Amino acid sequence: MQIAMIDDKIVPTDELEPVYLDRGVYFGDGVYEVVRSYNGKIFALEEHLQRFAKSLTAIEIAGVDIDRIRSRVRKAFDAAGIANAKIYFHITRGSAPRSHTWEADLKPNFFLTIADLPDDTELKTEGVAVSTHPDWRWKRCDIKSLNLLPNVLARADAERKGCAEAILVDEAGFITEGAGSAFFAVLGKTLQTAPLTANILPSITRKFAIEAGKNIALDITEKSFTPQQASSANELFIAVTTKDIVPVVKFDGKPIGDGRPGKYTKLLIREFRSFT
Amino acid sequence: MQIAMIDDKIVPTDELEPVYLDRGVYFGDGVYEVVRSYNGKIFALEEHLQRFAKSLTAIEIAGVDIDRIRSRVRKAFDAAGIANAKIYFHITRGSAPRSHTWEADLKPNFFLTIADLPDDTELKTEGVAVSTHPDWRWKRCDIKSLNLLPNVLARADAERKGCAEAILVDEAGFITEGAGSAFFAVLGKTLQTAPLTANILPSITRKFAIEAGKNIALDITEKSFTPQQASSANELFIAVTTKDIVPVVKFDGKPIGDGRPGKYTKLLIREFRSFT
Repeated sequence: MQIAMIDDKIVPTDELEPVYLDRGVYFGDGVYEVVRSYNGKIFALEEHLQRFAKSLTAIEIAGVDIDRIRSRVRKAFDAAGIANAKIYFHITRGSAPRSHTWEADLKPNFFLTIADLPDDTELKTEGVAVSTHPDWRWKRCDIKSLNLLPNVLARADAERKGCAEAILVDEAGFITEGAGSAFFAVLGKTLQTAPLTANILPSITRKFAIEAGKNIALDITEKSFTPQQASSANELFIAVTTKDIVPVVKFDGKPIGDGRPGKYTKLLIREFRSFT
Repeated sequence: MQIAMIDDKIVPTDELEPVYLDRGVYFGDGVYEVVRSYNGKIFALEEHLQRFAKSLTAIEIAGVDIDRIRSRVRKAFDAAGIANAKIYFHITRGSAPRSHTWEADLKPNFFLTIADLPDDTELKTEGVAVSTHPDWRWKRCDIKSLNLLPNVLARADAERKGCAEAILVDEAGFITEGAGSAFFAVLGKTLQTAPLTANILPSITRKFAIEAGKNIALDITEKSFTPQQASSANELFIAVTTKDIVPVVKFDGKPIGDGRPGKYTKLLIREFRSFT
């Protein structure tokens, strides 16, 4: 008899709920998005849906109707009634007995959660500390996939060091991005971040941060930089959907600038607000 | 109200079954093993449990009692009553609302399935074709984690080419291993496979294949080789728990040797049987 076991409980495989056979857990075989709302309005949903469609195509999950995903997100957001909400959703390839390959008619699984976003006023006014960690991720970080164990391990390392984010450093010694954020430096009047390659997520907050930088007349340079360059920058910040721009005031233990959020970073936070 | 949505159905988050909040699906935050039995006897269970313990430590999942895992595996195996069984089990860090970091008291989730192994006589007598694919995996392939999307994509590519396995090639042009197997070449009287590094799973079948090689007086070389070297080898084979040694008779479309399973590979298959 084919059986499954959940903790200490034996269950015949054919009585198992499909969620236990989700390829999401077997292989991380799925892609996700995190969207947020500001004061009752979802921000940049189309950009997120567009990236989601690209991720689905990249891992060959076919037949997902993006219009339907949009409706689900809107329906769930309306039902939740949360003004400043964090909306997470993923699609996995589906549920089936474990096998690397899959049947063509496998039905993808959709899952979404909506929760309140914590107030980020203190984060934005005080800034955060970050620490570096080797970038152990796979070679297709341009796909927003559920294979996030390296990100989890890097973030755990940062937490142990009393830091809010891990900044990932590749084998050549260059910063790629944060474990869950894009990473920026302000050097003089230049806003610098790593260029988009297969090693970097095409972050939507990154895109808007660059827009904000242009609006306040900063020069934009998409070029990789090292931890050493970062630690001597005038200003640093991370950019992430749930908190948009967060000043970085300490990098691997070293204070950045005068150890307070930088003037351009504060201008960028204000400018970003005008988009939302 | 915090809510979740499963396909089209809205569920309050606090009524959600914990399995939907499994960090296995959110992050691939777990490790697994595949063990098999031969004629009613589980093979190399201690080796698998030892590796499992190492994987758990490597990703900082603490407090798992390996003796308890052994008991569960044995109990499930006895309940299934399958002579030639494939036993899969994983542990994830636990179920919690999505956050990269985790609470210290989070309880890990254990899941196991047992199924019949298909007869592999034909595979072993006819051999299989394999094709190469870039190794897109993360930098800690020595950990047997649930982050397997690159393996899934590589295997899908192989399947499209009519091949049974994808052989992964790193950026330096060397073969690491198969998407779900170790990879060996026989060159003259030498049995060659890539050395164990952070880029390779310490495969238990690999270990026994090397033992078998020593027993039939082959020289053993743990040294990386290229697809070009592989395609001109006398013999090739893959090694994987569920099928032990499987001859490779075609590599990227090119027949290996006379296009039939090689003589040493056949001896190794016989020798391996003596271990089980």
